[in-house]
Amino acid sequence: MSLTSKTIGVFDSGFGGLTVLHALLAAHNPVSRYAFIGDSARLPYGSKSRRTIARYAVESARYLVEQQNAGFLVIACNTASALALDAIEQSVSVPVLGVITPGAAAAHAATKTGDVLVIATDATVQSHAYATACSALGLRALEKACPLLVPLVEEGWTDHPVTSEVINIYLAELLAQAATLGMKPDTLLLGCTHYPLIRPLIEKAVPAGIRVIDSAEATAAAVAARFQNRKSTDPTELRFFATDSVEKFERLGSRFLGQPTGPVTLVDLDG
Amino acid sequence: MSLTSKTIGVFDSGFGGLTVLHALLAAHNPVSRYAFIGDSARLPYGSKSRRTIARYAVESARYLVEQQNAGFLVIACNTASALALDAIEQSVSVPVLGVITPGAAAAHAATKTGDVLVIATDATVQSHAYATACSALGLRALEKACPLLVPLVEEGWTDHPVTSEVINIYLAELLAQAATLGMKPDTLLLGCTHYPLIRPLIEKAVPAGIRVIDSAEATAAAVAARFQNRKSTDPTELRFFATDSVEKFERLGSRFLGQPTGPVTLVDLDG
Repeated sequence: MSLTSKTIGVFDSGFGGLTVLHALLAAHNPVSRYAFIGDSARLPYGSKSRRTIARYAVESARYLVEQQNAGFLVIACNTASALALDAIEQSVSVPVLGVITPGAAAAHAATKTGDVLVIATDATVQSHAYATACSALGLRALEKACPLLVPLVEEGWTDHPVTSEVINIYLAELLAQAATLGMKPDTLLLGCTHYPLIRPLIEKAVPAGIRVIDSAEATAAAVAARFQNRKSTDPTELRFFATDSVEKFERLGSRFLGQPTGPVTLVDLDG
Repeated sequence: MSLTSKTIGVFDSGFGGLTVLHALLAAHNPVSRYAFIGDSARLPYGSKSRRTIARYAVESARYLVEQQNAGFLVIACNTASALALDAIEQSVSVPVLGVITPGAAAAHAATKTGDVLVIATDATVQSHAYATACSALGLRALEKACPLLVPLVEEGWTDHPVTSEVINIYLAELLAQAATLGMKPDTLLLGCTHYPLIRPLIEKAVPAGIRVIDSAEATAAAVAARFQNRKSTDPTELRFFATDSVEKFERLGSRFLGQPTGPVTLVDLDG
């Protein structure tokens, strides 16, 4: 299969995965066509069960492959990567990459002590997908759910004292727990695609000696490596789809993508 | 139709509507059987479009009437009451009561100046359902979306300084806007079923001379008035249904209901 003639399909439950698309556009890929779907009618996935998340994610994955001719899928959603990657792989015939494995690999490359902290949504943490992936690489990972960070980002409080205060509270709890376990963490992995937007606040909040890394960037780097960092010279073609309010997607999506999305097409997956 | 032999069906997108059920149980109703469904697989409705909300809400309403023999429906969800009440009324043959009209009526009874403030979710505010209902009663209402309050309640920070700070920020913005409009508000209406859990913090945050009232209580009072405040002497029978994780519903639901829910049954509405 010639991937350069294909589309990379990118899936998220909402807008957060646009930070992964942003990183993909900045990386060296031979693919110039991207189709992004946000299942915004059913977001957030972070508080839902594995069964429900898998059913929803498979519908979006199939849409990208069957309707948008995607030859490669990036699951730009930590919750779906943690809970539904197997179900997605079984439902489509193209390669599928989630954000967990690249995130864990980046943590492995970054850490010297082998002790890694992970912050993510409730469902991602409950799945222990990062701890499992880190453990497979010989790392110890301590995970913490931070359910208020996504709403704070979506409220637009990405440079707000309340957000810094919430980050401080979550990190203090996480560091205290790490200390009781005798861990010496030197790496904090951002395990949610919303978090890159508050990365500057998180960088300020972590103690000296802890490096912040990000699954969105790590995933884009993994895709680029898979394509041997060859860069397409064709003009980039972006197509956006959402299962709910395209107006909201167009309005909020630009914050995550770092550029205007342009027109978004409404898709009905369960109608 | 003898309502006393029937079940009152109560619907919400999640757990918040349990505050309405709590108020219904405390009020004088001749009905002793209640069936509550939380469409937790698709929550929150507050950020979704009218079309999507109506489709989801109708499925739950039909379930309560057709599968649970409900003879009266309470839409214990501000967003669904604001955006889907017509659609629900058209889809079932039993009386339907939302939370908006009773909330506006309670504001009308409480205010002396005729100027009312309303806090609610994004979708409820964008629908202007409270402003419309208040206007029909001769009141001026100013509405404000407070999207962080639901996640703060669901995080369990119902008595937390961050929650007080967020409430202060939202109220300051709302009061400043009211002042520029020349309003003299004396009533703050809680237009979201999650807010009763942080009512003590809200009471502390409002200036003297502003009374806090609550749509959940107002709705329960309206139901009781409809039944002429006759009280059933039969033992209360409660049945709970959710479209996602019943474990989570059982764990979190008790906080909203004020008592344990007991076993919750999983229901598949879109499978």
